[in-house]
Amino acid sequence: MEHYYWFALKSVPLVGNVTFLRLISHFGSPQRALAASARELSQVRGVSAQAAASLLSHDYHPCARAECERLAASGASVVDILSERYPKLLMEIPDPPPFLYLAGELRGSEPAVAIVGSRRATQYGLCTATRLARDLAACGVTVVSGMARGIDTAAHWGAVKAGGRSIAVLGCGIDVVYPPENGALCQAVAASGALVSEFPLGSAPLAENFPRRNRIISALSRGVVVVEAGEHSGSLITARYALEQGREVFAVPGNVTSDGSRGGNGLIKEGAKLVERVEDILEELSLGSPASGDQAAPPACALTPPEAELYVLLSRGPLQIDDIIVQSALSAGEVSATLLGLELKGAVIRLPGGHFSIT
Amino acid sequence: MEHYYWFALKSVPLVGNVTFLRLISHFGSPQRALAASARELSQVRGVSAQAAASLLSHDYHPCARAECERLAASGASVVDILSERYPKLLMEIPDPPPFLYLAGELRGSEPAVAIVGSRRATQYGLCTATRLARDLAACGVTVVSGMARGIDTAAHWGAVKAGGRSIAVLGCGIDVVYPPENGALCQAVAASGALVSEFPLGSAPLAENFPRRNRIISALSRGVVVVEAGEHSGSLITARYALEQGREVFAVPGNVTSDGSRGGNGLIKEGAKLVERVEDILEELSLGSPASGDQAAPPACALTPPEAELYVLLSRGPLQIDDIIVQSALSAGEVSATLLGLELKGAVIRLPGGHFSIT
Repeated sequence: MEHYYWFALKSVPLVGNVTFLRLISHFGSPQRALAASARELSQVRGVSAQAAASLLSHDYHPCARAECERLAASGASVVDILSERYPKLLMEIPDPPPFLYLAGELRGSEPAVAIVGSRRATQYGLCTATRLARDLAACGVTVVSGMARGIDTAAHWGAVKAGGRSIAVLGCGIDVVYPPENGALCQAVAASGALVSEFPLGSAPLAENFPRRNRIISALSRGVVVVEAGEHSGSLITARYALEQGREVFAVPGNVTSDGSRGGNGLIKEGAKLVERVEDILEELSLGSPASGDQAAPPACALTPPEAELYVLLSRGPLQIDDIIVQSALSAGEVSATLLGLELKGAVIRLPGGHFSIT
Repeated sequence: MEHYYWFALKSVPLVGNVTFLRLISHFGSPQRALAASARELSQVRGVSAQAAASLLSHDYHPCARAECERLAASGASVVDILSERYPKLLMEIPDPPPFLYLAGELRGSEPAVAIVGSRRATQYGLCTATRLARDLAACGVTVVSGMARGIDTAAHWGAVKAGGRSIAVLGCGIDVVYPPENGALCQAVAASGALVSEFPLGSAPLAENFPRRNRIISALSRGVVVVEAGEHSGSLITARYALEQGREVFAVPGNVTSDGSRGGNGLIKEGAKLVERVEDILEELSLGSPASGDQAAPPACALTPPEAELYVLLSRGPLQIDDIIVQSALSAGEVSATLLGLELKGAVIRLPGGHFSIT
C-alpha cells in the first residue's frame, strides 16, 4: 500500500504529470496534496481552479485500492520520483512521470543509450541493432528500447545475450506482455535490467501511448541510435524528443534503395551522427571505449548467451582453453561445446598452440 | 601545327605546369617564352635558374614535331588555357594544365558535377551511380568522371544514355582506350561531351597518373559525389582535392556491413553531404530542380537512350501516346516499341484512358 496515494492522485481527472509534480513539490507528498483544502490548493502556483475542484470532489479510493491490488498480484513494484532509484536523467524533462511501474531494477544513474527503429526491420537492421547493443553492453552501457517488434527486440536481446543491462520502456501496463511473442524477452530484461511503464496496470498497448512512451526512452538515455526507420516511423518521434531533451541523436546509414534506411539517412542529413560501429557512439558521448582493440567486426547475429560471454572474453585477446575456463563462468565441458559453436559460426578460430581467437 | 610551341614548352625538363603558366603569363605565348634570352628569363618571377637553363639548352623540336604528328593521326584536338573553351573552373586550381587534349567539345563554363567511386563496385553502387548521373543529365548538369571501371563507367553511361553531357578525364593519353572494354563508351562520351587528358598522346595508364588526374575531375565540377569507395580508395583522393579546391563533397551512404560503403559513410562522418537522390545535390549547389516533381524513384538501371528520353518526358506527368509522339523526337512506331520496353522493365505503366505514366 506504499503508493496508495500516488495512485490516488494520479487517478484524479485534470491532474496530469505537471500538476501532479507541482502538488507534491508544494505539499511534499500525494497524501497531503489530496488532503489540502480549497484555500491551500489555490495557493499552489500553476494548478488551475478546475484541477483543484476536481481534486476536492474526486473519490479516488476505488481506483487507488484497485491499483494496489493489481500491483500486488502482478509482482511489479513502483519507483516514485522522490526515490533515489528514480532515474536522474528522467527528471530533466518537462513532464516526468511522478512514478514508474517497474519489474527488475532501476538505478538512479547509469550510462545508457537507446537503440530504436522499425518494427518491420530488414535482416540488415536486425543484425546491426543486435551488434550495436551487444557492443554497448560489453562496454557496460545500458541499452534502452521500447520492446516493440523488430529493431527494439533485437536491441534488447543483443544486450541481454551479451550479459549486459537493458531497460524496456513499455507503451502498455507493465503486467501486459506485448507483443505477445516477447514473453521470454520481458523476463530476461526484467532479470538483468528493468521493464518500466508509466501506464496503469492492465493498460492495453494503445497506439496513442507510444509517442508518449518514446519521450521516456530518449530521456533515460545519453543518446538515441536510430537503426532502421521508414520515413514516418515512430523512431523519428523518439529522435525529435531526444533533440528537445538535449540528447545526442545517432543514426545508422543504409542503402538509399532501402525504404527502411530512409529515416536514418534523413536524420543524418539533418545532423544526426552517422554510426558505423559502437566506437562512434562511445566517443561522441565520452563513454569510454570497448574492452578490447576490437578492430575485428564481431559476428553479426545470434550468439547464445555462453557464446556471447566467450566472444567478449576472447575479444580482449587470444586465450588457451584452460585460461578461458578459469576466466569464464562456464564448466570445462560447456567451454568446449561453446567454443565449437563459435568456431562453426565462424566467430572464433583455433590458432596453432591451442589458442582461440575471434576472427 | 597550331600547338607546336605548346608541346615544345611542355617537353622542356624542369618546366612543370606552374612554370609553364608563369612563362606564358609573362611572355604571352609559349613561342615567345621559348625564344627568350637568359636575361629575359631571369626577369620572370618564380622561374628557377635551373628551369631557365633547361629552357635555353633543350632541343624541343623533335618532341614537338612528333606530338603534332601524333595529334593529327589521333583525330583529337587541343584546348589551351588562352582559349575561350578552356574550362573556367579549371583555372581556379594552383596548377591547371596549360592545355588539354580533347576529343569532343569543351565549354568555357557549364554546370558540372563529378560522380566517382570504386572500380570494384557492387550492384547497389552501379545502380545508384547510373541513376544519379541520369537524373543530373536530365537536369542539364554535365557529369564528370574518370572512365575507370565500376562507378565511373556507370556514371558516364548514365549521363550519355539519358541524352546528357559527360566529361571523362583520363589518366592516359587521349588516344589510349583504357580500360580496353570502354571503347564504345569513349566514343559515346566524345560524341555528346568530352574526353580530356593532360597526358601526352600515347601515355600509358600508369598508376601515378591517376591521383593527378583526380584533381582535374574535382576542379571541373561544382561538387564531387562519391558513390562507393573502400577505405583507401582513390575516390577519397578526389574528395580531398575537392575540399582543397572549395568544391562541395557529397557521398552516398550504404549499409555499414558493406566494405564498399566504408569510404562514403566515412566521408559523411567528416562532413560530406549525404546524397539519397539528385535533389540533394541540386539544392546544395543551387543548380535548379529536376524537370518534374519526380517524387517517384526512377528505375534503377539500363534504359536505352529512347527509353530514357520517354522516361524523362513522362516524369513530368502522364501523357497519351499521341502527345508522346508529338513531344518526343521518335516516330510513332518507335514510341510504341519504347513504351513497351519501359512497361516490361516496370518503369512505366499504362493507365485507363490510354495514358502512360512512370511508376
